Amino acid sequence: MTDTVQLSLPEVHELAVRVLRHNGMSDAHAQAIARVIAAGQRDECHSHGVYRLLVTTHTLRQGKVSGTAEPIVRDRSPAIVAVDARFAFSQLAFEVGSKVLAAKARQTGLAAMAINNCYHFSALWPEVEALADQGLAAMALTPSHAWVAPAGGSRPALGTNPLAFAWPRAGHPPYVFDFATSAAARGDIELHRRSGQPIPIGWGVDASGAPTTDPEAVIQGGAMLTFGGHKGSALSTMIELMAGPLIGDLTSLDSIALDAGKGGTPCHGELILAFDPDRFGLGDLQGDQDRAERLFSSITQQGARLPSQRRFEARARSIAHGVQLSRALYSDVLALLR
Amino acid sequence: MTDTVQLSLPEVHELAVRVLRHNGMSDAHAQAIARVIAAGQRDECHSHGVYRLLVTTHTLRQGKVSGTAEPIVRDRSPAIVAVDARFAFSQLAFEVGSKVLAAKARQTGLAAMAINNCYHFSALWPEVEALADQGLAAMALTPSHAWVAPAGGSRPALGTNPLAFAWPRAGHPPYVFDFATSAAARGDIELHRRSGQPIPIGWGVDASGAPTTDPEAVIQGGAMLTFGGHKGSALSTMIELMAGPLIGDLTSLDSIALDAGKGGTPCHGELILAFDPDRFGLGDLQGDQDRAERLFSSITQQGARLPSQRRFEARARSIAHGVQLSRALYSDVLALLR
Repeated sequence: MTDTVQLSLPEVHELAVRVLRHNGMSDAHAQAIARVIAAGQRDECHSHGVYRLLVTTHTLRQGKVSGTAEPIVRDRSPAIVAVDARFAFSQLAFEVGSKVLAAKARQTGLAAMAINNCYHFSALWPEVEALADQGLAAMALTPSHAWVAPAGGSRPALGTNPLAFAWPRAGHPPYVFDFATSAAARGDIELHRRSGQPIPIGWGVDASGAPTTDPEAVIQGGAMLTFGGHKGSALSTMIELMAGPLIGDLTSLDSIALDAGKGGTPCHGELILAFDPDRFGLGDLQGDQDRAERLFSSITQQGARLPSQRRFEARARSIAHGVQLSRALYSDVLALLR
Repeated sequence: MTDTVQLSLPEVHELAVRVLRHNGMSDAHAQAIARVIAAGQRDECHSHGVYRLLVTTHTLRQGKVSGTAEPIVRDRSPAIVAVDARFAFSQLAFEVGSKVLAAKARQTGLAAMAINNCYHFSALWPEVEALADQGLAAMALTPSHAWVAPAGGSRPALGTNPLAFAWPRAGHPPYVFDFATSAAARGDIELHRRSGQPIPIGWGVDASGAPTTDPEAVIQGGAMLTFGGHKGSALSTMIELMAGPLIGDLTSLDSIALDAGKGGTPCHGELILAFDPDRFGLGDLQGDQDRAERLFSSITQQGARLPSQRRFEARARSIAHGVQLSRALYSDVLALLR
């Protein structure tokens, strides 16, 4: 018996649907979440792949996140669609709303989707990539829980606040990035704590505000730091405002206060912007694309990588050969069907 | 005779208009540029204040930038206005177009203004602040000249690409930031070179791609670096795409190629986005504002500064007492009237 299990991508999707359905999720939610889990596994983003079924099932069994609420889509203006996720995970809300978002972006050149009352589930790249696959440029932003100190401070005020962006490319996967505005992911600091490893200086401060290499000190009473000093801190604050108060939803401070120490997943809003290059350009779309491609070539020809390049290489492998799961993980997931 | 000259803000504005008019600029352009020069001096951003008249007059006398071209405003969709600046400075194009932009943002909730064929003149904060003064949240982004290496590379591909953001606050100046995505401003590296001072590691690399403290090595054959490593590099690339190919305009690579070694100011596009909180919110505007204010309080109460706080303090002083110019600068500016 080998210690890995080989699955095709449709098998990953089907496994995820079975587990989620078995644990009380509606088919619509299960299909939407299975799509991002299969995408995460396919791109070798392991923390967003099959492993995520363990976390998600645990959350579902706790009953805090709805597995069945149907999102309500509201057409609010020629350029705004709002989706009330009704305290379910955000994926189904995104899938339902993004059809309206894309249609509006094609009609008016740019459009926004506000998702309210959703639980954060996955990375944001599947969302901006889905829009880029339709020929749209897209940005997505969301607050999280207040774990991160602002530049010049030492106490949590900001979330890990990811920003994702995608730009459609003819004949190539899109240009995509998706980064946390914290210096490190919360999960990376947790992993260091569990394995007893020190963290690099710059990831966080202790309760006194002093830089520390002790992950425990950051998590217990200290604070994470943003990337990029005062610039990263400013960008993170923008994400709070745009995906929080602008759309009538919570900041990371509000979200962690609502959680009241239970350690639950952030409950908040998300803002997605979509831009149609056909509508913005001045009639020379080929020239516009060529200028973007020259920029990408200038980056790659000097040996630098485009963001997500590693993911796209993993994707090509997974599409050709399927994915490998550790037998231990596979057994843990199958146990969720009991 | 003291070595400083005291001017009121209207006197600064009037001086700037006289100098610019005398050097061939139309009244409309001169008024628009005088407004940002007076604002820069008022906020003690000295490189964007009265000093700027020396640079601007020099550029005008070279005849490369039009001092008279009237911007052409095109209403392109319910959410997009485009302004062709016709190879003049961007200020007048912004002022003319921003009226349409603000009206569209109020009507549809969000709107974009693309300024094409403009010469970069000032910081972006006067523009996003002008929109915040009308109750709108705003972002502005623009490429520059390709001086900056992407993360993982060592040769210029990106501009210093500023990102500015403003959020309107009741009873307070707006929350505003405006930062270059390069680790340092081009001008700061130039200043170090002139004064023979080393630059900090992280600002740039030499021609071989090695980190250097020699400003000359960065400027001659080397490259500047972005802030925040691969995240800052990704953000800078987004700015290239959104304020370049998306709107049918140049990247920083194109702009520096067009300049052909003449050392001129970047010629490019700019993208400004405006968001109306009244249209995005879910009906509890006061609650939304309160949540934003709690975030700001949480930052300032721990002793951290909000971005632009220093500028707003300088502004209050200048409004009350006027501004001080060195007599040398004042004489140099008066000489531009001969």
